[in-house]
Amino acid sequence: MPRDAITPPTPFDWIDGQADRRRSAGLERVLRPRPPRSDLLDLAGNDYLGLTRHPAVVDAAADAARVWGGGATGSRLVTGSTELHAELEAELAEFCGFESALVLSSGYAANLAAVTALAPHGTLIVSDAGNHASLIDGCRLARGTTSVVPHATPEAVRKALATHTGAGLVVTDSVFSVDGDAAPLAETAGVCREFGAGLLLDDAHGLGVLGTGGRGAAQAAGLAGAPDVVATVTLSKSLGSQGGAVLGPARVIAHLLNTARTFIFDTGLAPAAAGAARAALGVLRAEPARAERARQVAHTLYTRLTGAGFDSARPDAAVVSVRAPSPAAAVRWAADCRAMGLLVGCFRPPSVPDGISRLRLTARADLTDEAIDRVLTVVTETAPEGARDV
Amino acid sequence: MPRDAITPPTPFDWIDGQADRRRSAGLERVLRPRPPRSDLLDLAGNDYLGLTRHPAVVDAAADAARVWGGGATGSRLVTGSTELHAELEAELAEFCGFESALVLSSGYAANLAAVTALAPHGTLIVSDAGNHASLIDGCRLARGTTSVVPHATPEAVRKALATHTGAGLVVTDSVFSVDGDAAPLAETAGVCREFGAGLLLDDAHGLGVLGTGGRGAAQAAGLAGAPDVVATVTLSKSLGSQGGAVLGPARVIAHLLNTARTFIFDTGLAPAAAGAARAALGVLRAEPARAERARQVAHTLYTRLTGAGFDSARPDAAVVSVRAPSPAAAVRWAADCRAMGLLVGCFRPPSVPDGISRLRLTARADLTDEAIDRVLTVVTETAPEGARDV
Ligand SMILES: Cc1ncc(COP(=O)(O)O)c(C=O)c1O
Ligand SMILES: Cc1ncc(COP(=O)(O)O)c(C=O)c1O
Repeated sequence: MPRDAITPPTPFDWIDGQADRRRSAGLERVLRPRPPRSDLLDLAGNDYLGLTRHPAVVDAAADAARVWGGGATGSRLVTGSTELHAELEAELAEFCGFESALVLSSGYAANLAAVTALAPHGTLIVSDAGNHASLIDGCRLARGTTSVVPHATPEAVRKALATHTGAGLVVTDSVFSVDGDAAPLAETAGVCREFGAGLLLDDAHGLGVLGTGGRGAAQAAGLAGAPDVVATVTLSKSLGSQGGAVLGPARVIAHLLNTARTFIFDTGLAPAAAGAARAALGVLRAEPARAERARQVAHTLYTRLTGAGFDSARPDAAVVSVRAPSPAAAVRWAADCRAMGLLVGCFRPPSVPDGISRLRLTARADLTDEAIDRVLTVVTETAPEGARDV
Repeated sequence: MPRDAITPPTPFDWIDGQADRRRSAGLERVLRPRPPRSDLLDLAGNDYLGLTRHPAVVDAAADAARVWGGGATGSRLVTGSTELHAELEAELAEFCGFESALVLSSGYAANLAAVTALAPHGTLIVSDAGNHASLIDGCRLARGTTSVVPHATPEAVRKALATHTGAGLVVTDSVFSVDGDAAPLAETAGVCREFGAGLLLDDAHGLGVLGTGGRGAAQAAGLAGAPDVVATVTLSKSLGSQGGAVLGPARVIAHLLNTARTFIFDTGLAPAAAGAARAALGVLRAEPARAERARQVAHTLYTRLTGAGFDSARPDAAVVSVRAPSPAAAVRWAADCRAMGLLVGCFRPPSVPDGISRLRLTARADLTDEAIDRVLTVVTETAPEGARDV
């Protein structure tokens, strides 16, 4: 009461109660701005190929800013399309094996664009329960109806499509960001074809890691360029930059360009980001072994972690997750790793669909064998009680 | 029939019908990638202060890429927060007069974040009919209920809030992107306060143009820093870069950081974009007259266009719109301007809420008086029949 006498109520007072509850549950998040260089061994970022600081990538970003300016200045449909954007689109499409590509300002925006544009009223969207937030938000924004199906279960997709007579769109991550497991794409595509449904796959964690020389999950599954398959990618992980793209048949891309709100009503990707992504793609093309090395590092981490008794899902790409006994233990574990010089991700509710907290380690193509040894030492030495038999 | 015999049906065949309809209606959009330099006079972009190619901005983008790399490498909550992001946030908040700021990868993402985080279940969102697509999508994603009210009508906001007993959030562009008119912010804030509702304003077109030295519409209306006001801005217009930010009380920003999906599940803004925006803010702080000059140029354009008989809404910021008799006439008019060396925007359905097609001219602080003369000559000489008395 005395507090009210001093501070009049505001419309945002309810926020404090939520913050208190988060704090007591140990779920409060804070930002930790990092310095330009650090001695921490980084297994938390998504720079799978170690390209974000590659000289060719950095130079291309700087050059693009000099040539094109700091921003795109407008929507891609007004002033925001440069020749650099067009080149990046052509090269992404060619590399991944699709007819056409459209670059957006983020992978998030690309997913919102693809789902909403491809699932108009009357469409049944069949969405994997483990899908990324951006696909889920896409489903919520789309005019179609969404049916969420159990994770990675083509039979569940079949059942959902069988209930519906109109158009269908099956939406799935190619590699799920929490556990790093791959979607059963070939089987899922088979089910889609039984029912004439489209397949939209989010290859955020597949591009640069899966497929021949990192051409992505669609290429790996023999689905790239198919008339019924659309993929989204981000430029912010393997390509070390920012941005996203939708890849698909030319008519799908033209349709997005004409209808997708996060494309039409958003400023074009900054030239520096387009330039950096294009250069990263060039490095990957010239050094295809980077993709394989990222997968190898992930596999080594997994083998050694499970060998040491930790509960980890077999990685299909470059994401390795290790289960923690509780959210609080996960937070403490990650903090203890950090204190020993190792940066790992910490996934806990509400960011994990199944409520299970995890450390998340990302393999990088540029991790040395000593670095991998170090990861094992630190993760083991800091492991909380119960981490080896959760 | 013969076509079907050759090409089996695909799930995306329905797209062609839509494309045909767009084509016959003259509403098909295509990308026109631009070269690095052009002789066109650009009144289509949103580079209101002429900063996107300012040497300080370009150098800062290039430096940031060199110091921090091509991308942020992860979510802001994992590895994606650099000291540069933190500095940009502190400087944006300070400049605009808010307690705190949070930078996101686009203005679109900032709007989705702000609306969804501030309008949980039970909230009545009161949304202006002229709001930007990103606010509208934010309303659709939010768990609250949305009531769309007639454009720029505080009395309608009052009526909507009066029907509701729970929390209220009033959402409005500060400057509407189509006609360039300003929202009646002071009156709207008064109505919000009558009902204890929060006010969320999208200052995409106000930052850098309105307020003292370009501090934005909230500052101009005496609302900056108020405990019941939250603003979003983009870094992609006056600041010549890419990205967006939410500005508000520290607890609101902490709440967003903990709950907003387009913040949590999106890679941080690329360092080059953060650096460019920060440098642009520095230029604006050092040269506050740029803001006034942008408004002046807009006013001159408006006065001379209406003097020449065109139908234009009085610009409150840097956007000047000129009505066209039809979508087809608008497209032709813009194309004829382009053929004469003048680049103008062309807004037509479905990008205009009222269905009226327009040329859209953006004033820039760096437009010379001769350039303005040239604009008048070209717009007049290319005007379609009926443009002067629509
Ligand atoms: C599976 C998945 N899809 C989409 C995104 C969004 O991409 P971006 O960060 O480039 O917006 C991410 C990560 O951020 C992701 O993990
Ligand atoms: C009013 C308004 N809000 C938000 C946005 C989105 O900002 P951004 O392009 O930086 O995503 C725009 C323009 O693009 C806009 O005009």
